[in-house]
Amino acid sequence: MEDRGISQAVIRRLPRYYRYLGELLEGGVERISSNDLSKRMNVTASQIRQDLNNFGGFGQQGYGYNVKYLYTEIGKILGLEEDHNIIIIGAGNLGQALANYAAFEKRGFILKGIFDVNPRLAGVTIRGVPIRMMDELRSFVANNEVDIAALTIPKDKAEEVADMLVENGVRAIWNFAHIDLNLPDNVIVENVHLSESLMQLSYNISRYNEEHQK
Amino acid sequence: MEDRGISQAVIRRLPRYYRYLGELLEGGVERISSNDLSKRMNVTASQIRQDLNNFGGFGQQGYGYNVKYLYTEIGKILGLEEDHNIIIIGAGNLGQALANYAAFEKRGFILKGIFDVNPRLAGVTIRGVPIRMMDELRSFVANNEVDIAALTIPKDKAEEVADMLVENGVRAIWNFAHIDLNLPDNVIVENVHLSESLMQLSYNISRYNEEHQK
Repeated sequence: MEDRGISQAVIRRLPRYYRYLGELLEGGVERISSNDLSKRMNVTASQIRQDLNNFGGFGQQGYGYNVKYLYTEIGKILGLEEDHNIIIIGAGNLGQALANYAAFEKRGFILKGIFDVNPRLAGVTIRGVPIRMMDELRSFVANNEVDIAALTIPKDKAEEVADMLVENGVRAIWNFAHIDLNLPDNVIVENVHLSESLMQLSYNISRYNEEHQK
Repeated sequence: MEDRGISQAVIRRLPRYYRYLGELLEGGVERISSNDLSKRMNVTASQIRQDLNNFGGFGQQGYGYNVKYLYTEIGKILGLEEDHNIIIIGAGNLGQALANYAAFEKRGFILKGIFDVNPRLAGVTIRGVPIRMMDELRSFVANNEVDIAALTIPKDKAEEVADMLVENGVRAIWNFAHIDLNLPDNVIVENVHLSESLMQLSYNISRYNEEHQK
């Protein structure tokens, strides 16, 4: 798959293509032109063609895209043909929200463990997975194949926990703690900083109000 | 404030500057050079100077930035000098996680209401705010000043609820439903699509493994 040097902007759009194609597939649509896909997705048809050409293109001029094929190929590019074992550190509301999100499992993200410091949560199960105490985390990670660890813990604990996970072989962190983790280059980190998203919204409200002389 | 035409990439970095400056301020640091800030934030000093110059610059060559001043000014740019009334639609785990996040209140995002369809949640309070039933939402929005509505509801309900909110005067949506809302141009939408973030992580794992011939 020739996708070295693909810009991160293209990569960021792929999950959205994947989502729309999945919906088309569920709706029984077998084939779609870049024009029709463009209208649905509210991006230009030429953007779609350009994006998909990065991966060798999947359509034929005038004939459109085979929805199932394109869906499957984008899934492969996104690494979704392989299962990923995921653990969640922090079983507060956010951790439980992630644990309960069945759609992740559908995409091959298999929940293997949930950890928390709160003894009242010990043994509570979420979708069949028991919440374990943090003192079991190190040996769990050392003895199980864990591909991704989601961190939904306070920022003052996140660095320490991330370091320990990495020492024990975890190579990908989905970080919800509001801190930039300082980890080796071979560890992949995806940050979800909710308060930054909220500030972005607040910024856009301000700009809008200024421009419209609220 | 001369920030028309500022690229979204710069805007996206502002909350991160704001976070680091806030931490410096809490730590009692009064002044910082772009070099020192650069080391902390792991971006180049010239990037920092460039970014901040978009807003007229806040430093003096060789003298560094006044932390408190810069923090305050970036806060103003982000619209944080004004309070924003926020309501949360959907009191599941994710909605409750947002409702419980006290840091939002510190930034002036004031929780005014939480709504759900589940009668068992009726009257439960989160940080003093009662969970109301969805049939009260329309009149609540019509009779209260609501700046931002966070949608943490299933995607098949999101469009309908968003339309109703907008009809009743809500102008900004923080959308966690896994759907692109089709709303008028004067409505500001900030999306948080968690499964797309997870796919991004999965993509980067695949690329890493390919490059390192796992």
